[in-house]
Amino acid sequence: MNVAGRPTRTIWPSADGIAVEIIDQTRLPHAFVTARLATLDEAAHAIRAMLVRGAPLIGATAAWGLWLALRADASDAALARAHATLLATRPTAVNLRWALDRVRAHVAPLTPSARATAARQLAMEICDEDVALNCAIGTAGLALLRGIAARKPVGARLNVLTHCNAGWLATVDVGTATAPIYAAHDAGLPIHVWVDETRPRNQGASLTAWELLNHGVPHTVIADNAGGHLMQHGQVDLVIVGTDRTTATGDVCNKIGTYLKALAARDNGVPFYVAAPSPSIDWSLRDGVREIPIEERDVRELTHITGRLPDGAVASVALTPEGSPGGNPAFDVTPARLVTGLITERGVAEASESGLRRLFSDAPAS
Amino acid sequence: MNVAGRPTRTIWPSADGIAVEIIDQTRLPHAFVTARLATLDEAAHAIRAMLVRGAPLIGATAAWGLWLALRADASDAALARAHATLLATRPTAVNLRWALDRVRAHVAPLTPSARATAARQLAMEICDEDVALNCAIGTAGLALLRGIAARKPVGARLNVLTHCNAGWLATVDVGTATAPIYAAHDAGLPIHVWVDETRPRNQGASLTAWELLNHGVPHTVIADNAGGHLMQHGQVDLVIVGTDRTTATGDVCNKIGTYLKALAARDNGVPFYVAAPSPSIDWSLRDGVREIPIEERDVRELTHITGRLPDGAVASVALTPEGSPGGNPAFDVTPARLVTGLITERGVAEASESGLRRLFSDAPAS
Repeated sequence: MNVAGRPTRTIWPSADGIAVEIIDQTRLPHAFVTARLATLDEAAHAIRAMLVRGAPLIGATAAWGLWLALRADASDAALARAHATLLATRPTAVNLRWALDRVRAHVAPLTPSARATAARQLAMEICDEDVALNCAIGTAGLALLRGIAARKPVGARLNVLTHCNAGWLATVDVGTATAPIYAAHDAGLPIHVWVDETRPRNQGASLTAWELLNHGVPHTVIADNAGGHLMQHGQVDLVIVGTDRTTATGDVCNKIGTYLKALAARDNGVPFYVAAPSPSIDWSLRDGVREIPIEERDVRELTHITGRLPDGAVASVALTPEGSPGGNPAFDVTPARLVTGLITERGVAEASESGLRRLFSDAPAS
Repeated sequence: MNVAGRPTRTIWPSADGIAVEIIDQTRLPHAFVTARLATLDEAAHAIRAMLVRGAPLIGATAAWGLWLALRADASDAALARAHATLLATRPTAVNLRWALDRVRAHVAPLTPSARATAARQLAMEICDEDVALNCAIGTAGLALLRGIAARKPVGARLNVLTHCNAGWLATVDVGTATAPIYAAHDAGLPIHVWVDETRPRNQGASLTAWELLNHGVPHTVIADNAGGHLMQHGQVDLVIVGTDRTTATGDVCNKIGTYLKALAARDNGVPFYVAAPSPSIDWSLRDGVREIPIEERDVRELTHITGRLPDGAVASVALTPEGSPGGNPAFDVTPARLVTGLITERGVAEASESGLRRLFSDAPAS
């Protein structure tokens, strides 16, 4: 999407052809800084230190990382070492293993001298596939947004609420939950986004707001607490969020607090949609609340917050009294019964096993 | 409640008898600092600049402020001027007008020379009444907590979730939502409190956590987003929150985000109680969502956050990108249908007109 009026991806090959470049997302929203990754170690560091984040972007970065490793040493041993190094950066990300396995399977049968070029080409393909997937979600979501807009007075603002960042910064481009939003905005619909701050890591306030601001989409940042009140007063036409993991039955595991918005949407008759690319679906799971383990993250994410001082420097401040313990579950599960529909790359599915299987008859059995 | 092991109120007459002292709550939780108010202007400033906050404490401070004014000048004109000055400090606080009117009505008929002493005595009474009211809520709530604890294994932790600060810092002592918690803790129940951070002003993370820490009540600070997940996993036995305004029908207007917790409690079969002292009940209101105007506060409360730098200094940092607008509704309304009961100073009422009238048959007609 656009940054300062210029179409930009989150990761791209450098002009000199010997490295990849990324947006250093740890600097957002206070500075737009790119970083150059020229070695395996630099790619691994970028994932580990969260210069890149979001499952699809992590996968893409890992694929490029294998290319960087193979450029330096294309032996079987080096390939195995690079795979292991990159896999260890963020052990829980599904796309990470998927991308690494895919590149390894593709290049392993080749002679070492052919591996780097093949890896480079596949990394590029993985990036393009991600963008195509997200665009397909955007197309499906756009039809849905047009339908909702058609029931409003002509020219009335269409208010979407989103939580966390399932935006282009989490993917290679376009994003998942943001795909319908960008599609609608670019198509001229008068869309406005309520951006949940998304404590404790503030991905909404820092990343989603920054994305929308740079692409020119009208938006308003709100506290996570505010969404229910806005829905009670008719200020939200629909909710669209992303998903980290979707069960075969349509339960959705997403950033902590998503469930609360789904409850408020249900209580106020507001449609609640989840942008769910098929790679997010775990066909082996049937009960999200019972089966999906929820990561308990470092409490410092809650007790300290990073922002911009008046002089422009970025600093971290403590919010809680010294001595008060904190808890930091990172995700929650929204049961399928609260989900109006899953926006997939093949269209909008009912959030149920039959609804998903209707679109994905080729999926593995549960 | 205790601060460093010593029973403390939020406001008290100074030892030398010519001023009042308060806790400067703008310095919490990073420093415990008291301030001395010796003049009308100092009292007005303390309310305006939120050194004191919380409706009951604002009322008490205003009463003391009238005494300070009358000590300097007890004429009719000075009384009128002081009343007007204090009333203008926080125009929306109900208790502020109530306390000021009460002191004025009490001293106006007296000769000027008798006014200051009478005002001082009444200010002290207003404080003691507030404490007695809160203790009565604590007694009613304790019975309720004992009932819930009795259904758990012996010795099992009793988990209460609270939102914002309806604690002793918002009152003269004991607090409203915290009154049952302190009563239970002091009675030896193994109580543990999930403290909602309460964005955007962080009253939970900064004030409620500080209170509980100082009184020795086990607690854990969580993001506002986390409560639903905890309830899904059986980690919350009940919710107790405060109320800024309660309708005659039992709707509750409280800090933004309260409604989301009420929805989650309902969805998970968790009792949701509101500590509602009768002065919070507005007998003229019947539909909280439709009738109660919600204050939209300065967006800087959302976009900037104050905390402690590593060197101990307190600083404010910006969270959002420059140019992203924000919205900041300060309260929301929880419909009575989601409220299990209202804990009043006369006992626990069903959240309905008949439930409230059963305990308050002497209340004005709607």
